[in-house]
Amino acid sequence: MLYEYADIIDPKQLPSRRKYLNNYIVGFVDGEGCFSISIKKQDDTKFGWVIDPVFHVTQSKQRSVILEIIKRTFKCGRIIPKPGQEADVLQYVVDSRRSLTEVIIPFFEKNKPIGKWKEFVPFKEIVTSLQKGQHKSKAGITELIKKAYELSSDRKHSLEEVLTEIQQREDASETIRRAPQ
Amino acid sequence: MLYEYADIIDPKQLPSRRKYLNNYIVGFVDGEGCFSISIKKQDDTKFGWVIDPVFHVTQSKQRSVILEIIKRTFKCGRIIPKPGQEADVLQYVVDSRRSLTEVIIPFFEKNKPIGKWKEFVPFKEIVTSLQKGQHKSKAGITELIKKAYELSSDRKHSLEEVLTEIQQREDASETIRRAPQ
Repeated sequence: MLYEYADIIDPKQLPSRRKYLNNYIVGFVDGEGCFSISIKKQDDTKFGWVIDPVFHVTQSKQRSVILEIIKRTFKCGRIIPKPGQEADVLQYVVDSRRSLTEVIIPFFEKNKPIGKWKEFVPFKEIVTSLQKGQHKSKAGITELIKKAYELSSDRKHSLEEVLTEIQQREDASETIRRAPQ
Repeated sequence: MLYEYADIIDPKQLPSRRKYLNNYIVGFVDGEGCFSISIKKQDDTKFGWVIDPVFHVTQSKQRSVILEIIKRTFKCGRIIPKPGQEADVLQYVVDSRRSLTEVIIPFFEKNKPIGKWKEFVPFKEIVTSLQKGQHKSKAGITELIKKAYELSSDRKHSLEEVLTEIQQREDASETIRRAPQ
């Protein structure tokens, strides 16, 4: 039995082995989890936009024990009230690039989501590219943002708006570089 | 590998063993499933109301493969558009008393839901009582309906309305029995 969760839940209520609990978590995440890539405006950055990968799992407060179990399993992330939602919905959130790379992605590569596999693969690719610094060049950030919009186009800013601003920033910095001293 | 699902999904996308898949299913059901007891008006029955236990799992059409996997696993039930919802939401539904008793309840006794355990236990008790015919007496059906309302009070008819009608039916049938021939 998984006694390391005994302060959260009676271990008899849990799957009896680690591997079983891992499969439970994949099933739960396939329903209530999300591998999301936010594109956020941030003026003080090179291109004016940042790419923000977040893994989160949502649950009503009355069943928050599941989020506690997931947090204990991954040994990273935090539980917060779901942003912009009623007070009785909680979210387990991992947004640290390092935790995503070292914990979350390897876990779901080993224990594959079924329904969210198509969401997980580009998420993993984008996080890996960010780790390699691909977003530091204009061509790189453009490709990553396009990939994020393929993953989900339901966003506050249109792709065109984002790419146009990146182009304008690039043009402006070119102009500055070329200007006579 | 679980080759018996190969016509639904590439087995490499599935957990490698039956027990792992069972744990995946419990996790998924803890998020998207429901052990529900409907109380329905049905005038041609003894007390005018029937108790209708249903196990269902909801998912968007684009991820309906998970419902297919669950259906194949349980070898019972059906997949239908979610009643009263958009056309792109599906539901795996088991409402046959026999399938609930012989398949669904034993599965979740062995592979325990975590978040929905408190919902599953009264569900199991009510299904078991129905199998024993407890709903055939006035005291029996009253107790079962009260238990169902404890499980969820978010219902079309108030508990008082249902119990009052059952009492009136009982009174009417008493009057008929006592009337001189």
